[in-house]
Amino acid sequence: MLKPFSDKMAGLAPSAIREILKFTADPEVISFAAGNPAPEAFPVETIGKISADIFREEPVNALQYSVTEGYPKLRKWLEDDLRKKKIFKDGDMVVITSGAQQAIEVTAKILCNEGDVIICENPSFIGSLNSFRSYGVKIIGVSMDENGMKSDELEAVLKANPKAKFIYTIPNFQNPTGNTTALERRKEVLALAKKYGIYVLEDNPYGALRFAGEDVACYKELDDSKNVIYTGTFSKILAPGLRVGYLCGDAELVSKAVVGLQTTTVHTNIWAQILAYRFVTEVDFDAHIKGLQAIYRKKYQRMADALGENLPDFIELSKPQGGLFIWATIPEKYDMNNFCVEAVKRKVAVVPGNAFNADEAQVSHSFRLNYSTPTDEQIDKGCEILGKCAKELLN
Amino acid sequence: MLKPFSDKMAGLAPSAIREILKFTADPEVISFAAGNPAPEAFPVETIGKISADIFREEPVNALQYSVTEGYPKLRKWLEDDLRKKKIFKDGDMVVITSGAQQAIEVTAKILCNEGDVIICENPSFIGSLNSFRSYGVKIIGVSMDENGMKSDELEAVLKANPKAKFIYTIPNFQNPTGNTTALERRKEVLALAKKYGIYVLEDNPYGALRFAGEDVACYKELDDSKNVIYTGTFSKILAPGLRVGYLCGDAELVSKAVVGLQTTTVHTNIWAQILAYRFVTEVDFDAHIKGLQAIYRKKYQRMADALGENLPDFIELSKPQGGLFIWATIPEKYDMNNFCVEAVKRKVAVVPGNAFNADEAQVSHSFRLNYSTPTDEQIDKGCEILGKCAKELLN
Repeated sequence: MLKPFSDKMAGLAPSAIREILKFTADPEVISFAAGNPAPEAFPVETIGKISADIFREEPVNALQYSVTEGYPKLRKWLEDDLRKKKIFKDGDMVVITSGAQQAIEVTAKILCNEGDVIICENPSFIGSLNSFRSYGVKIIGVSMDENGMKSDELEAVLKANPKAKFIYTIPNFQNPTGNTTALERRKEVLALAKKYGIYVLEDNPYGALRFAGEDVACYKELDDSKNVIYTGTFSKILAPGLRVGYLCGDAELVSKAVVGLQTTTVHTNIWAQILAYRFVTEVDFDAHIKGLQAIYRKKYQRMADALGENLPDFIELSKPQGGLFIWATIPEKYDMNNFCVEAVKRKVAVVPGNAFNADEAQVSHSFRLNYSTPTDEQIDKGCEILGKCAKELLN
Repeated sequence: MLKPFSDKMAGLAPSAIREILKFTADPEVISFAAGNPAPEAFPVETIGKISADIFREEPVNALQYSVTEGYPKLRKWLEDDLRKKKIFKDGDMVVITSGAQQAIEVTAKILCNEGDVIICENPSFIGSLNSFRSYGVKIIGVSMDENGMKSDELEAVLKANPKAKFIYTIPNFQNPTGNTTALERRKEVLALAKKYGIYVLEDNPYGALRFAGEDVACYKELDDSKNVIYTGTFSKILAPGLRVGYLCGDAELVSKAVVGLQTTTVHTNIWAQILAYRFVTEVDFDAHIKGLQAIYRKKYQRMADALGENLPDFIELSKPQGGLFIWATIPEKYDMNNFCVEAVKRKVAVVPGNAFNADEAQVSHSFRLNYSTPTDEQIDKGCEILGKCAKELLN
């Protein structure tokens, strides 16, 4: 008889989204369930050219072992770029990770003992929630209004949970709601984090993909102490298959994260790091970002229009100013899961909202829609099907 | 006042090898301290060509998100290859990891609670030991003779430690000793693992790099139950910068590892996985491996000859039949650390043996030498310096 799994991992199931994504293996299914960047947003030719340059000019650099902290030139570029954005401050350090999710996971690892508490927006990104669960941490979700996490509820949670280690937040175009936390709310949340002596882990994968409205200052920018840990990624601005993200924060904390990374991936694929560095320095990066924003603006508008045309008015839709997702909420008297199951039977996949709850058993009346991955035709047809489905089921 | 680090990570320091490697930033220092494959072993042109093919033929596949389990074609190739080698068995599963060390780390994560015990060869690979330490696990080292881990000592440890979860072993050309565990010893260790109901985690990064003697059956091959978990890597047979390794074992266990990977890197850089797959299927892979063996045979012989010429006879040297390392042991009356410090002052870096001990405070009289990274000229000159150093210090 072999030994059982560790307590922290024994109960952790595969992401619920994957169960939905199984249906999307059927080529007839239109998937609004993914979180993939638009494939047309990949600068394929430029990446191919840069990769060829790398293998012509510095093949051994791109193939040999490298340092855990990350490719020095890319770290330096990030440091300068983040300093310009007032995110990187004196005493800070940047480390490259294999995607932002590794940055989030290693932060939980270095800060949390089993039984500790992490506070997040409810709902929140399931990948991060599962990272936290994998360390036997208790997750407490704080409800949101249109301005973000409710600060009065947050303070009650902080008072009741002295073992809270950090507040996890996606302030811009949140996954799954598309919600952006208002500036005043950010200040309130940060003040509470300082009052109760805990960190804020700010996850900003979509920040550059703003297609409407004005940028709001990051938590990291607003922080005048060492309370905020910031993560970003090249997944949505270059390509997610590269798995290049980063962690930025107080050097002592980030150095401990390096020790953690050293015990696992050792370093991030070095070709991908060199590629990212050459990309941001060799192309007109600002123009590239503007191009992405235009793609996502168009995609979002296409889906918003199609949903507006097809869905009954009583289904509430979030109005993201960037990012990849729309959050749809049906009236409480209907069964959201039943709606999602019926939709996938009719070959349109969306993600049931409870997958994103801190407590998955908590009932949700919402579902998540992604507009970045499907084609325009799929958006039109899928929304038409959802509309018919809604009219038949929700009446 | 911010919260402290987690208990499991608070005491974990950066790898001791890194302290030595700092000296090797000095271009005048000849480093025998690394564990890098020989750069001339990288099939640079072929990799460049395959990469160009990928970006011409399937750029989006190489840039978009992929599945956590790994690139299906590579997994299938590994499954077939490992089945041929009697390593993959019915009911097994292969998952791709971001280097073998991630496979090792995630195995510790899914199996171990804090306070559990992992048993290893003493000395052993520091990267793995630090992975285990990062989960608050107690590591117990078992001494080795020329045939591997001593089985009587192993049984005593197993009896005394009911919380032992697995035995970690590098059976071929072990890091750091270069030692290969004899077939009979493997059978004894496996029988003990079965008797006490614990896993064997078999780490085989160097197995293909045999340049003398005959292959010995893997633990995984010898196992007729589900006791052995096997990890391999493309780091030493293709390129370590790619960070492509894998875990092979019982499907239930490997599925749990997938859940663990999903919470961190999500998936391994997909370009690197496609590259590895195309490489093993498009080139004459057996001929490539034979070429590597020839390179390492020559490198090893060069260093063995140079050490034989320069070092006093009372320094014992291991005689690896493959891999990257020679283990040197000086008489007990001398101070090994002092010798290593003096050597690095004279611009030759080696790794003090205690870095590899389960308990780093335990005195060691050995140091590790690497012959794969230095050039022939550096091998000759470095051994000459070590010889002079030994003659002056050890007398």
